[in-house]
Amino acid sequence: MKIGVLGTGMVGETIASKLIALKHSVIMGSRTVDNPKAVAWVKKNGENAAQGTFTDAAAFAEIIFNCTSGVGSIDALKQAGEKNLNAKICVDISNPLDFSKGMPPSLTICNTDSLGEQIQRTFPETKVIKTLNTVNCKVMVDPALVPGVHDMLLCGNDDDAKKKVTEILQKWFGWKSVIDIGDITGARVTEMYVPLWVRMFGVLGTPNFNFHYIKG
Amino acid sequence: MKIGVLGTGMVGETIASKLIALKHSVIMGSRTVDNPKAVAWVKKNGENAAQGTFTDAAAFAEIIFNCTSGVGSIDALKQAGEKNLNAKICVDISNPLDFSKGMPPSLTICNTDSLGEQIQRTFPETKVIKTLNTVNCKVMVDPALVPGVHDMLLCGNDDDAKKKVTEILQKWFGWKSVIDIGDITGARVTEMYVPLWVRMFGVLGTPNFNFHYIKG
Repeated sequence: MKIGVLGTGMVGETIASKLIALKHSVIMGSRTVDNPKAVAWVKKNGENAAQGTFTDAAAFAEIIFNCTSGVGSIDALKQAGEKNLNAKICVDISNPLDFSKGMPPSLTICNTDSLGEQIQRTFPETKVIKTLNTVNCKVMVDPALVPGVHDMLLCGNDDDAKKKVTEILQKWFGWKSVIDIGDITGARVTEMYVPLWVRMFGVLGTPNFNFHYIKG
Repeated sequence: MKIGVLGTGMVGETIASKLIALKHSVIMGSRTVDNPKAVAWVKKNGENAAQGTFTDAAAFAEIIFNCTSGVGSIDALKQAGEKNLNAKICVDISNPLDFSKGMPPSLTICNTDSLGEQIQRTFPETKVIKTLNTVNCKVMVDPALVPGVHDMLLCGNDDDAKKKVTEILQKWFGWKSVIDIGDITGARVTEMYVPLWVRMFGVLGTPNFNFHYIKG
């Protein structure tokens, strides 16, 4: 499949490398065509890997992964271009974290709105699916780093797109438990969960952890 | 032990009834001395149960459970009286939920502050321990309603108070896993978790559920 990964940070690199390992063709997109991190990533990842602008990556892609930092996501997607995003699935992994005042980060949007909803409103023809933003990037693509069954939440407005992304999570990345929490307003609750993730990272002493819901 | 339970709603009633069942002496406190819910609760719970004002409950108590609704908690505790709270443990179960615009509720405080922190700042001599606010009240006092091991988080500034409340959670209420997430700023992350709880309640179709953290 042809996939655009927006963002050259740890999340973008991890997702893009996993997709290459799965034999997909990936363009890693960034603000500039010669981003050094993207160049280095392409060198390591062979002939199915390429770099480009956000526009290049989105125009090429059948599915887009938004791995940009939350504060820059809307701008990055605008650079990608609405027509290159329309009718496509955008897997939104970003979190609206503000690290400007140090640790722990605060959220730039929360409570009655979310970044996932903002992206959906800004690009109404795109099928925004919020998921993966509740775990470390290594766990995103290798959930077996955490033993047993644990849960990945997913939300979005388009049922077919959710079904497709659920398959990606299960078959490509190996998630055993994917829970559909409804429409894109669910982004609010998973983004507001992230401060708890940060706290638990400090408590547990490893980024390789996740939650599992148990019901009576 | 002599315990003051502030609040006559479902949470207050459930906590107070459990404490009576454990043979403690409880005053259920509310704004007025003749609150009908408190009167009915006393009738059902025998000689160790009494009702009173917030002041009566706090003055009587060795430990206080704040089970008031979040929007009214600071006022309720002010009515209880600072001198009646000083040097005592206040187990803060409240959540700053705003139901005025319907479901789902939003938070009246979040992100860079929390109700737990506000209570601690308002009553600096009180040992505020935030816990139990991440599960339904029935699960609070009967965690076995959810099978297996699942987690209760706890935070606060006073280590001895946290140790005491951890014992209460384990020995009185039956919690197998109690995780100390640090100082009272942890209230921020557990209160911001509550919107996810509300969402999962809709998804799972029962209030009897909880999360368990698994690490690699």
